[in-house]
Amino acid sequence: MALQYVDMSNIKFLLHEVHKVGDLARYPEYSEYDDDSISMIVETLKELADTYLFPYLEECDRTGVKYENGKVTVHPQVVKVMKMMGENGWIGAPYPVEAGGMQLPHMVAILNEFIFAAANNNLNGYPSLTMGAAGLIISFANDALKETYLEKMLTGKWQGTMALTEPQAGSSLSDITTTAIPTEDGHYKIKGTKTFISAGDYEGIENIVHLTLAKIEGAPTGAKGISLFVIPQKRPAAGGKLEPNGVATAGVFHKLGQRGYVTVQLALGDDDNCHGWLVGKPHHGLAYMFQMMNASRISVGTHAAAITSAAYHASLEFARERVQGRRWNERDLTLPQTEIINHPDIRRMLFMQKAVAEGGLSLVLQCTRYEDLHHVSEGEEKEKYDLLLELLTPLVKTFPADAGLQAVSNGLQVLGGSGFCEDYPLEQYYRDIRIMSIYEGTTGIQSLDLLGRKVQLQQGKAFKLFLAETQQTIAAAAEIPALQKYAGQLKSEVENLVGVTKHLGKIAATGDIELFLADATPYQQMFSLIAIAWQWLKQGIVASSVLQAGEKSGDDLIFYESKIHTMKYFFVYQLPETRALTTSITSGEKLTVLGDKDLLI
Amino acid sequence: MALQYVDMSNIKFLLHEVHKVGDLARYPEYSEYDDDSISMIVETLKELADTYLFPYLEECDRTGVKYENGKVTVHPQVVKVMKMMGENGWIGAPYPVEAGGMQLPHMVAILNEFIFAAANNNLNGYPSLTMGAAGLIISFANDALKETYLEKMLTGKWQGTMALTEPQAGSSLSDITTTAIPTEDGHYKIKGTKTFISAGDYEGIENIVHLTLAKIEGAPTGAKGISLFVIPQKRPAAGGKLEPNGVATAGVFHKLGQRGYVTVQLALGDDDNCHGWLVGKPHHGLAYMFQMMNASRISVGTHAAAITSAAYHASLEFARERVQGRRWNERDLTLPQTEIINHPDIRRMLFMQKAVAEGGLSLVLQCTRYEDLHHVSEGEEKEKYDLLLELLTPLVKTFPADAGLQAVSNGLQVLGGSGFCEDYPLEQYYRDIRIMSIYEGTTGIQSLDLLGRKVQLQQGKAFKLFLAETQQTIAAAAEIPALQKYAGQLKSEVENLVGVTKHLGKIAATGDIELFLADATPYQQMFSLIAIAWQWLKQGIVASSVLQAGEKSGDDLIFYESKIHTMKYFFVYQLPETRALTTSITSGEKLTVLGDKDLLI
Repeated sequence: MALQYVDMSNIKFLLHEVHKVGDLARYPEYSEYDDDSISMIVETLKELADTYLFPYLEECDRTGVKYENGKVTVHPQVVKVMKMMGENGWIGAPYPVEAGGMQLPHMVAILNEFIFAAANNNLNGYPSLTMGAAGLIISFANDALKETYLEKMLTGKWQGTMALTEPQAGSSLSDITTTAIPTEDGHYKIKGTKTFISAGDYEGIENIVHLTLAKIEGAPTGAKGISLFVIPQKRPAAGGKLEPNGVATAGVFHKLGQRGYVTVQLALGDDDNCHGWLVGKPHHGLAYMFQMMNASRISVGTHAAAITSAAYHASLEFARERVQGRRWNERDLTLPQTEIINHPDIRRMLFMQKAVAEGGLSLVLQCTRYEDLHHVSEGEEKEKYDLLLELLTPLVKTFPADAGLQAVSNGLQVLGGSGFCEDYPLEQYYRDIRIMSIYEGTTGIQSLDLLGRKVQLQQGKAFKLFLAETQQTIAAAAEIPALQKYAGQLKSEVENLVGVTKHLGKIAATGDIELFLADATPYQQMFSLIAIAWQWLKQGIVASSVLQAGEKSGDDLIFYESKIHTMKYFFVYQLPETRALTTSITSGEKLTVLGDKDLLI
Repeated sequence: MALQYVDMSNIKFLLHEVHKVGDLARYPEYSEYDDDSISMIVETLKELADTYLFPYLEECDRTGVKYENGKVTVHPQVVKVMKMMGENGWIGAPYPVEAGGMQLPHMVAILNEFIFAAANNNLNGYPSLTMGAAGLIISFANDALKETYLEKMLTGKWQGTMALTEPQAGSSLSDITTTAIPTEDGHYKIKGTKTFISAGDYEGIENIVHLTLAKIEGAPTGAKGISLFVIPQKRPAAGGKLEPNGVATAGVFHKLGQRGYVTVQLALGDDDNCHGWLVGKPHHGLAYMFQMMNASRISVGTHAAAITSAAYHASLEFARERVQGRRWNERDLTLPQTEIINHPDIRRMLFMQKAVAEGGLSLVLQCTRYEDLHHVSEGEEKEKYDLLLELLTPLVKTFPADAGLQAVSNGLQVLGGSGFCEDYPLEQYYRDIRIMSIYEGTTGIQSLDLLGRKVQLQQGKAFKLFLAETQQTIAAAAEIPALQKYAGQLKSEVENLVGVTKHLGKIAATGDIELFLADATPYQQMFSLIAIAWQWLKQGIVASSVLQAGEKSGDDLIFYESKIHTMKYFFVYQLPETRALTTSITSGEKLTVLGDKDLLI
C-alpha cells in the first residue's frame, strides 16, 4: 500500500503563494479565514482523510455494493464518513452561516474534496453530492422545504442526490419524460424512471433526498419545460416519522471502477404514491440544476486531479524502491541494479503524472478563486469572475479527467507487471478515474459547451477576459530571465488559439453549426493545454522569485526547483500537442461529419 | 453482447489485395496455399472462434482463476480450446510438416491469433504460448527432447510456457539467478523462482512444459551466461507415466484484466528435486529465447489489434442503435432523437478506433509477410527481410498496444455511462488490453530496442531498407491524383524522421548514451505513426485503383470508399502527432535525465 496520496507542501504552495487565498480575508464574508487558520483547516482535512478514508480504499473496492432482497448494502465506512462530515460541518462548508454553513471560501472547500478524493474516491462522493443537493435547497427552495430537509442533510443524517438522467435521456436532458402532476395538497405526484443515480440507495442512512428533474403535466417541450423537485426516499410525516414515498430501487449497476460508490436505477411512483415538492418556480428546473451541475463539474475535475495525485505518489514510491537494470552510462553488470526512478523513461512518465496532477489542481484553485471573487464582488467585477468561471468550467472538468487517465495509466506502467495486479493500488485508480470523463457531461458535451456556448458568451467577452488573464501572466514571466523562453512559448500558443478560434468562427458564420462544432473536442484539448500551461507559468513565476531571493535550502530548495523543472516538462512534453491539434482542426477536411453515405463500417 | 468482433471483408482485403498472400504459393514451402485455400482457412478460423471462443468471453472474466488447496482452476473452456486447437493442427500451424506442423505461411497463422484474440483474449493465450514453446524445441532441442515433448504439445495435451522473469529480474533478464547444476544422468538440477508465468499451472491439462532461462553453475555474468532448459511440471518416467518434478505454484496473481488467463509464480526445486533438460548449447539460452520472444512480440501486438477490433465493433453497434440528441443543423426538439453515430464527436472516436485496429492489423501482416519471405529466400534477400522484420518488431508490438488502449477507451466513451458498466464488453476490453503495453518487454523496453539497437543495426541498414519500402509506396501513391496530398504528407514525415534520427545520432556520437536514449519512447511513437501511415497509404493505393476501375457497387463500393476515408482520418487526426513529438525530442533540454539533485518529489 502506498503511504502518500497528496503533497501537502504543494497544496499550501498553490493555495497561499500562487492563488493567494489569504487575500480573501479582506472581504467581510471571509474575514474569519486568514492564511494561518486556512493552513490549520487543511491540516485537519488531511488528518481526517488519513483516519476515515485512506485506510478503506481497497476495502471499499473489494466489498463493492450488494443488492439482495431489495436492499442495497455498501461498506459500513460510508455511513461513518457521512456522520463525521456532517458533525464537523463539512457538508455545509461553502454555504452561508445563516443557512447552517461555515461560509468557507470555495478555494478551501474544494480542497476538502481534493484531499478526500485522493484518499478514497469511493467514499468522498457521498458527502460531496449531499453538499451539492443541499446547495440547491439553500438557493432555490422555500422555507418549508429548508426547514424539513436542510439540517438533516447538512449534518449527514440524510443523503442528497441529483436525479437527472433517464434511460432515454442522458446527454440530451431535454428529452426527459418523468412527469409531475399537481395535487391540491401542495405536492406533485411523480412518475418516471431515473438511472445512473449515484448514492441513490443504501442501508444505514436515515433517508435519501433526490433533487429531481421532471416535467409538470402540460409543460413546454424541451429544456424550457423542466422543473426541479425534492423527492425523498421516505417522506417526513407527522411526529417526525418517515413513511415510504414510492421510490423503488430497480437495480444497481456493476461498474468498472468506483465499486464502493453505489449507482442505482430508480422507479418513481410505480405504486402511484410518490410525492415530489417543487423547488422554486415551475419550468425553471434546468437553470437551477445548473448551479449543482457547475459545482459538480468542478468537483469531478477535482476528483480526477486527486486520483491522479494519489496514483503519482504510489508510482513514485514504487520507483524509488524497485531496483532494475543499470543506467546506460554505467553498464557494468557486476554493479548492483539501480532504482528505476533513475531511468529517463520512468522519469518521463513520473513527471507527466506530476505535471498533470499539480497543473490540474492549480486550475481547480484558479476556478474556485474566481468563484469566491464572484461571490464577494459587485457589478462589472462580479460579471468578470462569473464569465471566467463559466469559460473555464468545461476545461477544469475535462483536462484532469482525460489527461489524468493517461497519467494514471503511466503510473500503472511505471510498476510494469505489478501495476496490472491487485497488490498495488494503481489498477484500482486506473479503473476509478475512467468515469471522470463521463460524469456530469461527457468530454464531448463539455467541449460543445466550451466552443458552442462559453467562447461565444456575450460576443466573446469571456474569451477576451481569459486572454487578458493569460497576457498578464505572460507579461510577468517575461520579466524573469529564466522564464522568458516559456513566456514566449505561451504567448505564441495563445495567439494560435485566437487564430484557430477565428477559423472556427468563420465556419460558424456560414450557418453550418454541425461542421463548426465537429472538432469541439480537439479544440477543447488545445484550450485545456494552454490553460494548464498558464497555470504552470504562474507557478513558475512564484517559484522563480522565491529562488531568486536565495533564502531556501534543503528540501525547501528542491521543492521550488522541482516546480520550475516540472513547468519546463509541461512546456516541452505536453504543450506542443497543440501543434497536432491545430493541424487537425484546420485541415479543411470534413471527415467526421456524416456525408451522403455512412462510411463507418 | 456485441455480435461482431472482426470484419472478415477487411481481413480478406488486407490478406489478398494489400499484402498479396497468394504470391507465397510460388515458393515450394507454401505451394499448397493459394488465395482460395487461404480464404477457406480464414473462414474456418472464424467459425471456430464463433463456436469455441466468443461465447465465453464474459464467463472467462467473471469465473476468473481460483487457487485453493494448492490447485489452480480455470474456466473449463480452456482445456476444450487446447484440445480443439491441437486436434486441428493449429498449435503447429507455422512449423514444417516434418516437425508435425502445417507449414502455413506466418501471414495466415497470425490471423488465427488475431481472430481468436478478438473473439476471446482470455482463452487464446493458452494455445498461442504452447505454439511458441514448441517452436523453441523444434528449432533448438535435441531429438530426445523432441521425441518426448513435441507431439504432446502440438496436439494440445501439454501446455507450453516461457519462464523468464524472476522477482528481481523483469526487464533486466541479465540478473536472473535461477541455477542449474549438471548431474551425471544428463539432466540438470534446477533451483529458483519464476514469476508472472502465463498459463503456468491449471487443472485439467496433463502437463505443463516450462521453457525456462537459468544459469549453469559457474556461468559468465550477465546475458552471456544464460541457458535454456525444458522443465516440465511433471517429468516423463518409465511406461509413459508422469511423476512430480519439483515445480510448485507459489501463488496466482489477481489482475486488472485477462482474469481468465492464469498467471502464476513458480518455485522450482524447493524440494531439491526439479530436473531440467538443456536445450541446445550452454550459455546460448537468451539467443534461443529471442526466437520465441520475437514471435511473442508480434503476437502481443496482434492480440492488442484484435481487442481494438472487437471494441470497435461493439461500440459501432451501440452507436448505430442508441438514440440521443439531435444533429446540430436539425435542432427541432419535436423531432425524434437521432442515432448517436450521426454525431461528429462519436464518429471521430469510432474512426480513430477503426484506423488503429485496421492500421495495426495491416502492420501485423506486413511483418509476417517479411517473416515468410525471409523464410523462403536466400542470401541478400533473406537478410533484407530479416532486417526489416527486426526493425518493425518493436513497432508492431507497441503501436497496437498503446494506441489500441486509447482506441478501446474511445470505444468505452462512445457508450457513455453504459461503457463503464459490466452490461457491455467495453469495460472488459479496457481492462484486458492494458497488459499489452507490459507483456514481452514494456513500451519503454521496445523503444530502447528500436532506437538503441534496431535503428543502428549494420550501420543503419535496416533503417535504410525501411526508408526504401516507404519511398516505394509514396512513389506509387504520388501517381494517383486522389492520393498525391497524402503521399506528400508521408514523404515529409519520413524526411522529418530521418532528421530526428540524425539529431539523436549526434547525441549518441558524444558517448552520452543515457541522453541519446532518454527520448526513445517519443521516438518510437513517432516512428510507429509513420509506419501505420505507410500501411494506410498502401491500403489507399489498392482501394483507389479498385474505385478507379468503377466496377463496385453497394456494400462493396462503400467498403473501398470507407478505406480511403479512414486513411484520410489517420493522416488528418493521428499522424500530425509527430509534430508534437518532434518538438519534444529535439528541444535540447535534458528534463528526464537525472541531474545532481533528484527533482522528482
